[in-house]
Amino acid sequence: MLNRLFPQEFNFFTLFDKQAECLMEGAETLRLAIEKGVVDSSRLAKVREIEAKADGFSSAVISQLNKSFITPFDREDIHSLTKALDDVIDMMNTIANRMSTYKITEVRKSLMESALVIEEACRALSAAVKGMRDMKNYELVMNSCLEVSRLENISDSIRDTALGVLFESEKNAVTIIKWKEIYEDAETVVDICEDAAHVVESIMLKQA
Amino acid sequence: MLNRLFPQEFNFFTLFDKQAECLMEGAETLRLAIEKGVVDSSRLAKVREIEAKADGFSSAVISQLNKSFITPFDREDIHSLTKALDDVIDMMNTIANRMSTYKITEVRKSLMESALVIEEACRALSAAVKGMRDMKNYELVMNSCLEVSRLENISDSIRDTALGVLFESEKNAVTIIKWKEIYEDAETVVDICEDAAHVVESIMLKQA
Amino acid sequence: MLNRLFPQEFNFFTLFDKQAECLMEGAETLRLAIEKGVVDSSRLAKVREIEAKADGFSSAVISQLNKSFITPFDREDIHSLTKALDDVIDMMNTIANRMSTYKITEVRKSLMESALVIEEACRALSAAVKGMRDMKNYELVMNSCLEVSRLENISDSIRDTALGVLFESEKNAVTIIKWKEIYEDAETVVDICEDAAHVVESIMLKQA
Repeated sequence: MLNRLFPQEFNFFTLFDKQAECLMEGAETLRLAIEKGVVDSSRLAKVREIEAKADGFSSAVISQLNKSFITPFDREDIHSLTKALDDVIDMMNTIANRMSTYKITEVRKSLMESALVIEEACRALSAAVKGMRDMKNYELVMNSCLEVSRLENISDSIRDTALGVLFESEKNAVTIIKWKEIYEDAETVVDICEDAAHVVESIMLKQA
Repeated sequence: MLNRLFPQEFNFFTLFDKQAECLMEGAETLRLAIEKGVVDSSRLAKVREIEAKADGFSSAVISQLNKSFITPFDREDIHSLTKALDDVIDMMNTIANRMSTYKITEVRKSLMESALVIEEACRALSAAVKGMRDMKNYELVMNSCLEVSRLENISDSIRDTALGVLFESEKNAVTIIKWKEIYEDAETVVDICEDAAHVVESIMLKQA
Repeated sequence: MLNRLFPQEFNFFTLFDKQAECLMEGAETLRLAIEKGVVDSSRLAKVREIEAKADGFSSAVISQLNKSFITPFDREDIHSLTKALDDVIDMMNTIANRMSTYKITEVRKSLMESALVIEEACRALSAAVKGMRDMKNYELVMNSCLEVSRLENISDSIRDTALGVLFESEKNAVTIIKWKEIYEDAETVVDICEDAAHVVESIMLKQA
């Protein structure tokens, strides 16, 4: 176990787990904020709170990195991973922000599908992150990363279908501008999950 | 020759070459799909097939990476390069997808110019990738990477001109939304070619 | 001092400083080009000249990298840092280009606020870059990087407010398309400053 091989002043894995939990919480909150077909603005506000909380864990990683002599893997990889996880929740927050900025109240159906895929991708990514602390989880971690990639493909096709319907059915150009961006941002969340999964894969490859 | 210095269980260079060939094939198919001024939808569909084939080579690289003890250069660089090459063909596929989604049948002239530059950039990038297997090609590889950067500048100015004409001549906002995205995506293909070229440069610098 | 510990054939720090000075000059010129509320097109053109000058320093870094046996830190990090700094001035140039392409003559107020934040972010990033040459500046460099992150948050909220006002007050979809892009690009300049600051942080962490 890496944990045992490398006694640490501070447990980075605990902080990564906290970041992963923020991802799961953010994704669930985002889904709940829209799943009824009308926007639940208090839940959108909660996404912003979760993002702020996640920022704290990300800063704690960087701050510990400055103080630690021994780290479980390369310092740069710790930096990259914490940044990638932070980017995921940032993007969920961007969606929440845009929905407020654009004063959107009714939710189009495709976004609800996207929200489910975002949640699944965050779950798979979290499993990968949590598995990293022990190389005996190698298969599980790599499979979870592959699952994120699979979900990214699904997310792509949900967005393509959503855009097709939007341009076909909506005549108001300003409405098209707003929803086009939201659909694309929703897909980007899963893209960034895949980026984070690539960092995890890369760390595992180095350790193997 | 790296090939001789580092006997390998598996030849990564062969897979990179296959990815590079998919790039060339994708770029040619995209050009052919639009060069008559009307969209050839069966050729757009072929871009999607080429992207799927390219995915297979990219997955093979990752899978071999998991099994190989000796690699021709850093494991992380192999990971980065295969991802960057995959991103290029992905973006060509995005353009094909958007043209279908937006039900575009007539092709604006600037896109034909972009398609030619994309093809040249993929050719230069492929030359760089194919040259990597032997350090005696150092000059050729670095020059090919510079050529990709030169083409990226041209691609930038084609897009700027295209957007100027679009906003000047087109009054329908929805049409502007569609074509603005397609012009930008076409430029992004060349941007990602340049990103891939930067990975190649970085690998060569480490070996030098 | 790194400078003394690592005698160099060429002083990379001098080139990084030149790049940082271009950033400051570009940011100041962009602000001056718009601060009167009407576009000063000769100053926009000057942003393009500064970008071209900055390209020269970036190319000089890459070219020196090819010739140097001893570098003050990892070759790949030198490559990443010079690229990140180049991306900042590129994005400022993109804004100047878009304003010309879209034939914008009157400047919306939010953009003036953004221009001030861009200038501050470039100043903090420059301080970080200039401090890197001596590890006794460790605190100053890390604090300057944190300052860039702080400004990135401000930049985010300026853009959010600007988009809210734009969608609320503007009825012309084409005008919305143009200004939405410019506001987002202005925010992206600060985002890329933060990316560059992350490269600086990562270099400092490795040296520490």
